[in-house]
Amino acid sequence: MLKVGLLGAGRIGQVHAVNIAGHPQSTLAAVSDVNMPAAETLAAKFGARACTSEDILADDSIDTVLIATSTDTHSDLIEAATASGKAVLCEKPVDLSLARAKACLEKTRPSGKPVMIGFNRRFDPNFAAIRAAATAGEIGKAEMLAVTSFDPGPPPLAYIKVSGGLFRDMMIHDFDIANFLMGALPKSVIAVASSLVDPEIGAAGDVDTAVVTMTYTDGRIAVIRNSRRAAYGYDQRVELLGSKGLLSAENVLENTVSKATKAGVVSAKPEFFFLERYMRAYAVEWAAFVDAVLQDTPVPVTLEDGIAALALAEAATTSAKTGQPVAVEI
Amino acid sequence: MLKVGLLGAGRIGQVHAVNIAGHPQSTLAAVSDVNMPAAETLAAKFGARACTSEDILADDSIDTVLIATSTDTHSDLIEAATASGKAVLCEKPVDLSLARAKACLEKTRPSGKPVMIGFNRRFDPNFAAIRAAATAGEIGKAEMLAVTSFDPGPPPLAYIKVSGGLFRDMMIHDFDIANFLMGALPKSVIAVASSLVDPEIGAAGDVDTAVVTMTYTDGRIAVIRNSRRAAYGYDQRVELLGSKGLLSAENVLENTVSKATKAGVVSAKPEFFFLERYMRAYAVEWAAFVDAVLQDTPVPVTLEDGIAALALAEAATTSAKTGQPVAVEI
Amino acid sequence: MLKVGLLGAGRIGQVHAVNIAGHPQSTLAAVSDVNMPAAETLAAKFGARACTSEDILADDSIDTVLIATSTDTHSDLIEAATASGKAVLCEKPVDLSLARAKACLEKTRPSGKPVMIGFNRRFDPNFAAIRAAATAGEIGKAEMLAVTSFDPGPPPLAYIKVSGGLFRDMMIHDFDIANFLMGALPKSVIAVASSLVDPEIGAAGDVDTAVVTMTYTDGRIAVIRNSRRAAYGYDQRVELLGSKGLLSAENVLENTVSKATKAGVVSAKPEFFFLERYMRAYAVEWAAFVDAVLQDTPVPVTLEDGIAALALAEAATTSAKTGQPVAVEI
Amino acid sequence: MLKVGLLGAGRIGQVHAVNIAGHPQSTLAAVSDVNMPAAETLAAKFGARACTSEDILADDSIDTVLIATSTDTHSDLIEAATASGKAVLCEKPVDLSLARAKACLEKTRPSGKPVMIGFNRRFDPNFAAIRAAATAGEIGKAEMLAVTSFDPGPPPLAYIKVSGGLFRDMMIHDFDIANFLMGALPKSVIAVASSLVDPEIGAAGDVDTAVVTMTYTDGRIAVIRNSRRAAYGYDQRVELLGSKGLLSAENVLENTVSKATKAGVVSAKPEFFFLERYMRAYAVEWAAFVDAVLQDTPVPVTLEDGIAALALAEAATTSAKTGQPVAVEI
Repeated sequence: MLKVGLLGAGRIGQVHAVNIAGHPQSTLAAVSDVNMPAAETLAAKFGARACTSEDILADDSIDTVLIATSTDTHSDLIEAATASGKAVLCEKPVDLSLARAKACLEKTRPSGKPVMIGFNRRFDPNFAAIRAAATAGEIGKAEMLAVTSFDPGPPPLAYIKVSGGLFRDMMIHDFDIANFLMGALPKSVIAVASSLVDPEIGAAGDVDTAVVTMTYTDGRIAVIRNSRRAAYGYDQRVELLGSKGLLSAENVLENTVSKATKAGVVSAKPEFFFLERYMRAYAVEWAAFVDAVLQDTPVPVTLEDGIAALALAEAATTSAKTGQPVAVEI
Repeated sequence: MLKVGLLGAGRIGQVHAVNIAGHPQSTLAAVSDVNMPAAETLAAKFGARACTSEDILADDSIDTVLIATSTDTHSDLIEAATASGKAVLCEKPVDLSLARAKACLEKTRPSGKPVMIGFNRRFDPNFAAIRAAATAGEIGKAEMLAVTSFDPGPPPLAYIKVSGGLFRDMMIHDFDIANFLMGALPKSVIAVASSLVDPEIGAAGDVDTAVVTMTYTDGRIAVIRNSRRAAYGYDQRVELLGSKGLLSAENVLENTVSKATKAGVVSAKPEFFFLERYMRAYAVEWAAFVDAVLQDTPVPVTLEDGIAALALAEAATTSAKTGQPVAVEI
Repeated sequence: MLKVGLLGAGRIGQVHAVNIAGHPQSTLAAVSDVNMPAAETLAAKFGARACTSEDILADDSIDTVLIATSTDTHSDLIEAATASGKAVLCEKPVDLSLARAKACLEKTRPSGKPVMIGFNRRFDPNFAAIRAAATAGEIGKAEMLAVTSFDPGPPPLAYIKVSGGLFRDMMIHDFDIANFLMGALPKSVIAVASSLVDPEIGAAGDVDTAVVTMTYTDGRIAVIRNSRRAAYGYDQRVELLGSKGLLSAENVLENTVSKATKAGVVSAKPEFFFLERYMRAYAVEWAAFVDAVLQDTPVPVTLEDGIAALALAEAATTSAKTGQPVAVEI
Repeated sequence: MLKVGLLGAGRIGQVHAVNIAGHPQSTLAAVSDVNMPAAETLAAKFGARACTSEDILADDSIDTVLIATSTDTHSDLIEAATASGKAVLCEKPVDLSLARAKACLEKTRPSGKPVMIGFNRRFDPNFAAIRAAATAGEIGKAEMLAVTSFDPGPPPLAYIKVSGGLFRDMMIHDFDIANFLMGALPKSVIAVASSLVDPEIGAAGDVDTAVVTMTYTDGRIAVIRNSRRAAYGYDQRVELLGSKGLLSAENVLENTVSKATKAGVVSAKPEFFFLERYMRAYAVEWAAFVDAVLQDTPVPVTLEDGIAALALAEAATTSAKTGQPVAVEI
């Protein structure tokens, strides 16, 4: 039974709290948040105690922490937690800076403690099924990957300004999915990008619409399409073409109802955003982490994976600015 | 090469003319119609001659006739054509009277000429695929059939009054599909029916909404649902549940386009009515008839099949009136 | 905050426990089960106490009970719990005997305590959306309902023998959905049924394949199809045809992945059985019950609803035996 | 009534012959082919005469020619036909050489005769519906186009060698669809490409797998994906994301049947190749041409459109070789 300290009682922390409490082999022992009342409310619901993150890290009865705080604290908390001998599941990204993320890896590695990065989409049953089928050879040799990833709407401009930009903030998930499904890093990244959704985003130096093409040493190709606005909801699809067929993961819809009238057949939209679409993925993610920690096997998403996705985001950011292909190096 | 005389140059006759001319082993030699200018226009388009039906039947160079005239002439024309030594494809139904249809069979049989009834739906690629898969054992032993068959809207009241009623006019197609897919006649028919679409239909002594349940000697069950009005188009579906799975034929849609917006995802309606939905079936039907005649093999839909469907229609008509199950006899 | 006593710690009790604990306005206070260790394990996970059902009913700090025990105890427990002043959510059915269920209603009514019957399917987001759209007039006047309800496989024969038969045990859910969606009781029920799945079921006096047609005083028609075996999983669909269109609820699939190869396009099966398909419905059901109790509004599924479904099951059982339509009386 | 001379009696010429004969305002007058027996067989079926292409061009009673000969003859025949005063529908491409195509335009223009290029996909009901909806503003302002276009398998190597390469031979259709749907030429083209399907294709200097990203002066983006091999059939899809929604055209499937068993749900593959998928588009294309000629309105696909698509193909060919974005000039 893992005793878990949860750092961060915000929206995503609350999702994790339910999964920690609901898992047969983990209990929620403590919750911290910079907003202490939030920590208290959440802790009370599950019979845990509310305290500071320092208290949690200092508590030897807690063997595991889940980091769901703001991005700028991730690297520091990963280092502190592993130094305290705790297993770590940290929300993505490791850091907005590739250099800082690499330093975190260097500092953390000697502890030997498991550190898993919360790329939740790997645990989406649909994307996981694509990977399983591809790995089992069901479509022969993979040749071309296409990732479609559109948000229902842009975040507040204030957030955009500190987000690190579309490639680091939004497409980083898709870079990780590409790494997950292609099983290799690309050798080259070409990005084209515009600000079409909101001119303020462009004025702030960011883009809201982008296409990235990646080529691999063996000739395979991957394409990622991002938009900050899909009026119909969260659009999250993947297609993998292989020598013997095509694997596709379609959107998860709000319901299975259709209405046929003179005006056509109307069916439901995709689940609205990540909390709806990936609700189940978060539970599967937590279960995978618990399994790895309890069975002392490698975590399914490593700090290195977090760094790899970040490296692709940096390459794409450069390519979009220069208009030139950028070689990938880690 | 079959030389074909087409009796009837109306809407459905025109469809047949294209298929006759387009088939590599048949040519359209002559066209007749009670409306002679209609026959002339159609004949001219395909280099055929326009004449009376008597001329066609008397023309020894014509070896095949396609009967696409009004229902009340079918039996007489089948008898006359086979007596003239011609192979016959006749539009459904054989007759509105079961007794007359049986008499037609008795009179026609001695000629030995092929007579095929135009139950076009058997040649719909979807329903044909259901039958092929069922026959190949792909769902094990069939157990329950469900036929959904809704028209886009009711025909004119004047037509309703001479139609023979919903079971003989509309559901007769579905009875034939049931016979086609179940490979046996039911032992009992139970019908419930209402006039919900248009009270005038009820006032005329007919119904517009009906459900028929049929049971078979081996315990299998079939359900047919009919409505004279589906606001969204022609609804033509079939489901066959077997011990190892389910076969379903969905509607054919007008196109494959969908539009996702805030209001939901809108896709196309089913093809509007039988000319659209079964356009391809008519061509396949003609090809099957040509094959049978040229290769001297049994036609795929016999006069007996036409009689069987009519017998079920009579049983259903009785059941709907009495509220009691009716045993099927032919 | 409702303090809840859970009677029954079996498979379905465990599902309810999670929903009770996860709801912001309810807590799990106590758990009972004839198998005490099962109660203890479940109680421990959520910080509740394990005790006997008598203890729960006697505990004045507990204001609500959820009855998830075996069917033969439902009526007694409903009576005892309401007599103890507790609000009740009881799993379906009220009882296998219509007379006993009616007696339970008589005895319970004076308490004035809310009693809700757990017809979980009403809370399925898909069926609920059908009802909402129909009520909002989106398809005009409803005319024909079709309910498809196939289990993935038959239960053990021992269960069949005490189940009350297919109509009371399995189709009762579909009768309730028909009542829910048609907003009225039918006037007449016609059932046809066979034992096709397993001859042992027939030998035990039950059926495994059935079609029920119900007619309403205003001419509307409903059809329910049941089979104890759908090799591909739990098949749960509803279609409602109205004067202006058709509402359909399709199955919920295990995932959204498809694989296109030379052999065709393979996609996922329906969710395997009720625990998977209706997992979300159970949570919505609990939330609806909590709302009704806390706001002192009528519960959305009443004891009378439970009796109505049971009355249809009895009528269908009789019809299947006699081969005659049976008038519905309550 | 247009009197039509058909140049070329091969596979695609035969398709056109049926459409010419089947259209109420055109008749097939003459057929030519380098293989005279092929011309004779086709002509006989439709009551036309077989002759040389010179005969057709010299025949003043023929006012229209359809050019369905090999690509290397297109420009010459377009020039000769317009010089003879005939309206022309010519199969794509105009020529493999952009310079030659431009010269053809210069030479043809003075005749004032209509010249239409057979980009059949514009007349596919699905792609046409996308364009109509986009033009009607149903998804607001278009922002991102994605074209998926995979052949079922590569053509013979001998054909590859004279094809002009994947971009001129295969993707040229998709360039035209992009021009059709975006309503503007891109300013820049970036191509990545590999030989993954068959190393012989790479050895012959061509590619079989390619992704092209195009950017427009107003910031819009289009992506085209091509593969010479989709094991499951011809994959022809289009997606257009706009500020208010997404338009998608899915594949046309061989039938609407699905089979649900323990192994999953199997449905039909896409129509096998262009003759199946675009059969209906060819008929619509011919009707559009007839309308334009008879009503003296501009043809819907011009020689300039043919040149534009060819220009994009040249740019993509260069980009794939250099690895650099290529500016588009015509």
